[in-house]
Amino acid sequence: MADSNLVEQLIQSLRIMPGIGQKSAQRIAFHLLQRDRDGARHLGQTLLQAMDNVNNCSRCRNLTEAEICHVCDNSRRDQSVLCVVESPIDVMALEQATDFSGLFFVLMGHLSPLDGIGPEDIGIDLLTERFKSENIKEVILATNPTVEGEATAFYITDLAKDYDISCSRIAHGVPLGGELEYIDKGTIAHAFSGRQKVG
Amino acid sequence: MADSNLVEQLIQSLRIMPGIGQKSAQRIAFHLLQRDRDGARHLGQTLLQAMDNVNNCSRCRNLTEAEICHVCDNSRRDQSVLCVVESPIDVMALEQATDFSGLFFVLMGHLSPLDGIGPEDIGIDLLTERFKSENIKEVILATNPTVEGEATAFYITDLAKDYDISCSRIAHGVPLGGELEYIDKGTIAHAFSGRQKVG
Repeated sequence: MADSNLVEQLIQSLRIMPGIGQKSAQRIAFHLLQRDRDGARHLGQTLLQAMDNVNNCSRCRNLTEAEICHVCDNSRRDQSVLCVVESPIDVMALEQATDFSGLFFVLMGHLSPLDGIGPEDIGIDLLTERFKSENIKEVILATNPTVEGEATAFYITDLAKDYDISCSRIAHGVPLGGELEYIDKGTIAHAFSGRQKVG
Repeated sequence: MADSNLVEQLIQSLRIMPGIGQKSAQRIAFHLLQRDRDGARHLGQTLLQAMDNVNNCSRCRNLTEAEICHVCDNSRRDQSVLCVVESPIDVMALEQATDFSGLFFVLMGHLSPLDGIGPEDIGIDLLTERFKSENIKEVILATNPTVEGEATAFYITDLAKDYDISCSRIAHGVPLGGELEYIDKGTIAHAFSGRQKVG
């Protein structure tokens, strides 16, 4: 494909995106070239700007182009509650789904000794510093319900104890609209043992 | 989302791609920011380059950054057979699936009087010019089997007659691996009436 190189290059470049295979990349490339060159130019510029300017918030490690992210920077948010999540996308999910008005702390991962990921890699030193210096009363552990996520939650619970901070874990159980029949055993067992009194 | 603007902008920009909704755009944005900044920078640059430099081949209307695309420019290809397709992605599909060694002509659309798309919009003037000036013996009509695609194929067949060029239409029928039970009536009727003698 000597001289249509650039089209071919574009298709291959698009494939770095998760979930985009060869066919999707072709469809996207030709769509942009034929129908939305301005949009594609804007996307190109935004990609370059974002990759060069977005870094981690120095307070909560979330992604932001500022020194302090807009959540940490918002003084109207409850400074005494800290929600700990694994990644920036979790912050977005929680912000969209809940009316949580406290602060976040983004681990950017989870403890995973087998992969060589220890406390220092997930910002535990920064978290400890905040436990020490700020007036945090509750930590909500919203790490994922995986083995690593649970281990990380457990580790942070332990840490928070030293500073007399109470910890809570988000509930795990049957998702809304889910049917018992189709839910895995682990989730059902969790939902059953975590049942709450209603009357 | 005041200061995380750039992340939000990136997510919105990604949504111009067909098949990418809000959730996918979020996943892609965070994946690129957290794991593949170099790939994303390269994608950004390639997008900008491609949008500014890729144009239509002056001979076949296919997308290329050169004056003449690599297919038209290849003198070893059979100059007497011309395959007419609706879009550049069809050229790619045919090149990948067949050993066709003739030339292409890309209409960049199909006749659609209701949408105001007439012969001049799909390059029929350029095609007529090629019928006149080149030594084309066969035209293979590979427009899509839609009402508009069929009408376009019919129109070009009619045109080719004036220049004593024979036309053929790609076969339509049951796709390989398809089961009759699940194929629509139109396709089955087409496959049945288009049956070929085998013994």
